[in-house]
Amino acid sequence: MDNFTYNIPTKIYFGKGQISHLAELGSKGSKVLLVYGGGSIKRSGLYDTACRILKDAGVSVVELAGVEPNPRIETVRKGVEICKTEDVDMILAIGGGSAMDCAKVVAAGALYDGDAWDLVINPGLIAKALPLYCVLTIAATGSEMDMFAVISDMSLNEKIGTASPHMVPVFSILDPEYTFTVPKKHTDAGTADIMSHTIENYFTNVEGAGIQGHLCEAVLKTLVENGPVALNEPDNYDARANLMWASSLAINGLLSGGAGVPWTAHPIEHELSAFYDITHGEGLAIVTPAWMEICMKKDPSKTKDFAKFGRAVFGITEECDECAAKDAVAKLRQFLFESMEIPSTLRAVGITEKDNFEKMAEKAATRTANGYVPMTKEDIVEIFEMCF
Amino acid sequence: MDNFTYNIPTKIYFGKGQISHLAELGSKGSKVLLVYGGGSIKRSGLYDTACRILKDAGVSVVELAGVEPNPRIETVRKGVEICKTEDVDMILAIGGGSAMDCAKVVAAGALYDGDAWDLVINPGLIAKALPLYCVLTIAATGSEMDMFAVISDMSLNEKIGTASPHMVPVFSILDPEYTFTVPKKHTDAGTADIMSHTIENYFTNVEGAGIQGHLCEAVLKTLVENGPVALNEPDNYDARANLMWASSLAINGLLSGGAGVPWTAHPIEHELSAFYDITHGEGLAIVTPAWMEICMKKDPSKTKDFAKFGRAVFGITEECDECAAKDAVAKLRQFLFESMEIPSTLRAVGITEKDNFEKMAEKAATRTANGYVPMTKEDIVEIFEMCF
Repeated sequence: MDNFTYNIPTKIYFGKGQISHLAELGSKGSKVLLVYGGGSIKRSGLYDTACRILKDAGVSVVELAGVEPNPRIETVRKGVEICKTEDVDMILAIGGGSAMDCAKVVAAGALYDGDAWDLVINPGLIAKALPLYCVLTIAATGSEMDMFAVISDMSLNEKIGTASPHMVPVFSILDPEYTFTVPKKHTDAGTADIMSHTIENYFTNVEGAGIQGHLCEAVLKTLVENGPVALNEPDNYDARANLMWASSLAINGLLSGGAGVPWTAHPIEHELSAFYDITHGEGLAIVTPAWMEICMKKDPSKTKDFAKFGRAVFGITEECDECAAKDAVAKLRQFLFESMEIPSTLRAVGITEKDNFEKMAEKAATRTANGYVPMTKEDIVEIFEMCF
Repeated sequence: MDNFTYNIPTKIYFGKGQISHLAELGSKGSKVLLVYGGGSIKRSGLYDTACRILKDAGVSVVELAGVEPNPRIETVRKGVEICKTEDVDMILAIGGGSAMDCAKVVAAGALYDGDAWDLVINPGLIAKALPLYCVLTIAATGSEMDMFAVISDMSLNEKIGTASPHMVPVFSILDPEYTFTVPKKHTDAGTADIMSHTIENYFTNVEGAGIQGHLCEAVLKTLVENGPVALNEPDNYDARANLMWASSLAINGLLSGGAGVPWTAHPIEHELSAFYDITHGEGLAIVTPAWMEICMKKDPSKTKDFAKFGRAVFGITEECDECAAKDAVAKLRQFLFESMEIPSTLRAVGITEKDNFEKMAEKAATRTANGYVPMTKEDIVEIFEMCF
């Protein structure tokens, strides 16, 4: 097991009615920037509830609405500008990963003199940030309990992750009821996103990280059991609750600390979203099984790890590692593309030509050389071809 | 799943050489009370290392040495007195649960005007505490990352748990190498303690706490895999590391949040330690399998839960719930009393007469009425009889 520092200061208010804790902002500041995406929080009534609680707590509200699914640097800049001109002293994100990621970089940008894109390409420049509070409305990125944010500059075809302990939310409110109205497509994609985080954590070259591996298996089993239930019964509280808590635990450091996680599928998918603006979770679902097959093809000694994964998560009982590993990938595909009904190919999500495969693979390969199985540009092109 | 608040502010420095972080105390205060037990930290050199780092950081040190295995209120009072007369502004516990629990109540008592026992019997009186830092030397109680402390008044045969968010350590240093010298008896008892915390978390009446259950299974599997290795190869780093991290995660709120944990085995064991000063972890190991059997006898509908436990933790494949549950208890006994070589009866730990069974059971029963299966005085006497 590797050395690690575990530090998750975000307080979580989990469950029904926890929105009342927004009133605590009254004692923490006077003006909040409310960051959100489309109109879903208005339709659901959450927007009105939050505004009423904030008003009753004596907090004034200014807004940054319309954050995109892959949040753009232009929107971040707009939020920073509002913070600076309106003397905002705290940020509240209501939504999913996009709203929260945008809010994080706005929070940092508000206390930075240069352009916010600097903070995306150079996280070391993030020296402080306004305090951030979140209300989660979809189980997916885990941004509600971590220090990460992913921001896109579509003019450059860049989608880049940044991170800072200053951007970790002070508290996040997780009420599973807010996810009852999440449409099928996003319940799917969110579950795939959580699964991908966990899979990236699970396949590590660090020896002796046994407890981390078992914790990954716990999250993965939770997804396999609850994803299809949430899909078919959108207002099943326990299914939504299990997915929601899995979302936070999958990427807050619990699974990675000590296990030296070498991200690979994420950098590969990031190029797909950066070039084609596809839904992150769908991209991850499409890429992950192919990535597994390339791993085993390139390094057959890894087969035993995929066999272990299949036995632990899907209850595969085959004794032969090669058979169990093959079955594991098949079961994963079945879960993602049949039980969860996620599109299974790049074409199915609108990527109908291969023109950018080389270019995307070249960019992704700059971040996959130290992966669980190192991936070259050629390997990544092969993954794209398999997924086409 | 129940509503819950998750709030674990303790920062963990995990791994080799993390003791260097003690130097951070130089920027946090000027005089520390060093709380520890017997001479083991002197023999291992840890005492000297810590004192040197503190001295180099400009921190003066006063000491509370000789904390007992079941820490006494008299020792707490002595620590409080030192804090008050010496103007101590922070506390450092080096050791296991006893040193840390004692240090917690000293930290609170130092800022309280009355007698420290008040804070044990009435946690609501704990309004503040000196900041606490810990260096862990045994994987067991999880006190390094939680708000709990258990203090005994042997003159009253009382062993009582108290808790306060003010007593949560600011940071804890977890270096598995410090546990290489933990003797067999305490590696055993510590593992049994962690296992018991996790089992108490696992068996809950809350519906839909799926992820919490799977996380418990992850910790339990970690114990089953690593406990015997640590026993037979005391300096196996990865085995010690897995046990150490399991110790913290088992009781910091991760497994219990949302699962409404109804503690039963602990209150029963607490009476044994309070009357006979036995090793807490050994008492828990002895009591737990018998408690399981009484649960199923009193409420056969629970049998399926024990079958699930056996399948997940011990890989039992029997389809019949009753057989699997029976096998699960047998496998647990085999793990505790054979693989881990823990004494299996009360007589084996020195409780050679039954005179206090009624009295202990009566006291324990005041805290077990809302358990997973409610336990009466008579049930607890039966457990003691089974364990005799």
